[in-house]
Amino acid sequence: MTALIFRGHEVLGGIPVENRGLAYGDGVFETMRVDRGAVHWWDAHWTRLTGGAERLGLHMPDCGIARDACRSLFADESDGVLKLLLTRGGEGRGYAPAPDAPPVWMVSRHALPARTRRGLALHWAETRVAVQPLLAGLKHCNRLEQVMARGECARRGTDEALMCDVDGHVIGATAANVFVLADGRWCTPRVDRSGVAGVCRDHLLSVLDASEDSISMADVEGADAVFLCNAVRGILPVARLGARTWLDLSESVAVARRLAHRHPGLVLDLEHP
Amino acid sequence: MTALIFRGHEVLGGIPVENRGLAYGDGVFETMRVDRGAVHWWDAHWTRLTGGAERLGLHMPDCGIARDACRSLFADESDGVLKLLLTRGGEGRGYAPAPDAPPVWMVSRHALPARTRRGLALHWAETRVAVQPLLAGLKHCNRLEQVMARGECARRGTDEALMCDVDGHVIGATAANVFVLADGRWCTPRVDRSGVAGVCRDHLLSVLDASEDSISMADVEGADAVFLCNAVRGILPVARLGARTWLDLSESVAVARRLAHRHPGLVLDLEHP
Repeated sequence: MTALIFRGHEVLGGIPVENRGLAYGDGVFETMRVDRGAVHWWDAHWTRLTGGAERLGLHMPDCGIARDACRSLFADESDGVLKLLLTRGGEGRGYAPAPDAPPVWMVSRHALPARTRRGLALHWAETRVAVQPLLAGLKHCNRLEQVMARGECARRGTDEALMCDVDGHVIGATAANVFVLADGRWCTPRVDRSGVAGVCRDHLLSVLDASEDSISMADVEGADAVFLCNAVRGILPVARLGARTWLDLSESVAVARRLAHRHPGLVLDLEHP
Repeated sequence: MTALIFRGHEVLGGIPVENRGLAYGDGVFETMRVDRGAVHWWDAHWTRLTGGAERLGLHMPDCGIARDACRSLFADESDGVLKLLLTRGGEGRGYAPAPDAPPVWMVSRHALPARTRRGLALHWAETRVAVQPLLAGLKHCNRLEQVMARGECARRGTDEALMCDVDGHVIGATAANVFVLADGRWCTPRVDRSGVAGVCRDHLLSVLDASEDSISMADVEGADAVFLCNAVRGILPVARLGARTWLDLSESVAVARRLAHRHPGLVLDLEHP
């Protein structure tokens, strides 16, 4: 991994020990796909980062400096994952936010995840997501629930976990949004009480003319097709969810083809499509 | 501030950029009061840290190494605040916890907060706490709700904010537990759905023979006396909560005297007792 760390405009030699991201998860982040040095959906990621920063009262980095830092990490024009982490400036002892402290932020380069070659196996997460409208939709750094749910996958032998909120509404996977097909229309859970408004989700809402709704576990299990999506991995068709299986993944594969048409890096190449 | 950082038994030169505390708030912490080099309630803090680590599946540091590190920070036998931050080991890209990675942990030394010289002014936080039994009681590092609520204080001109959960139950202040006196008995909110089981709170539950219960906003406003407490500042009598005032702070001061008898550093010295 290669990383560049900043306080406002200033380059830092490391993460400050008093950093509030470290102390309280007091920040937001973006995880972006890079193909041959080009960042997918940069504008959409930057817009979401800006919206999250505004809701939490964080100062934004300078866009030009951030863009240059990201470019320098991928100056070799390779493929990979780019992460931008934005944390509140100031001290990490005491919750009181320092309104004038410049933000501490970091861009880092990571390897692409392995390509998806088969439909995913999911389980219903035992870990429920809390309802918190104040933070809903944001890709903030308070992610213990997702860590706990993802930890279930190793024990259950699954690829991902589908999470419900404490009231039983389906929210999404730990690191992906979910879309379900019913009556010929794609639908994805609302994210105004919990969950993350993913950049790929936003893109698909408009491309697929999909709807946002309250979705139950029965809705998912009764769907004709289910896929997960995120900005790094694109479309991930679901082949199994607990005891429920979907043998025909063609509807999800068709969505993946439409996405890959615009973003060739997100092409889906299943062994058994 | 002085800090020592470790990965397992190994001393590190700084916070690893891939640290999961930084990425996800994937950790727990303790904030302890130090008087003339001696840590208050070390055993209770260590026990709570251990309990939190167990619930989240974190590996613990070696107790002897941790104790030595803390001692070396306060080798001058001065007063101060000692923070111990324990984060999950492994990489910070991807939620999946690495079960075998040694933990990354840090001890740091901070100045004591200013002594409390008057009863506190509180307001009811607009920021509600989510209900999440999985994390309730833990002093984990997902603290955005507390940061947001504490940010209200500057705008409202208050010392602290009293938080309710999304269902309207009183939980506590952003960085302290709350006790209320009614019918001659002290009572504090349950922390099995939200909130932090503070070390000072635990101590007082037994010393005051206090009860844990579901507490409403009306219960607090109707109480004969209210105080906040934490392990660093001890007892903080409440003089005002929104429009409600308590002129006579003697009941809370009496509790503070009992605490100071055992922990002289936590003596309360109000200008207008």
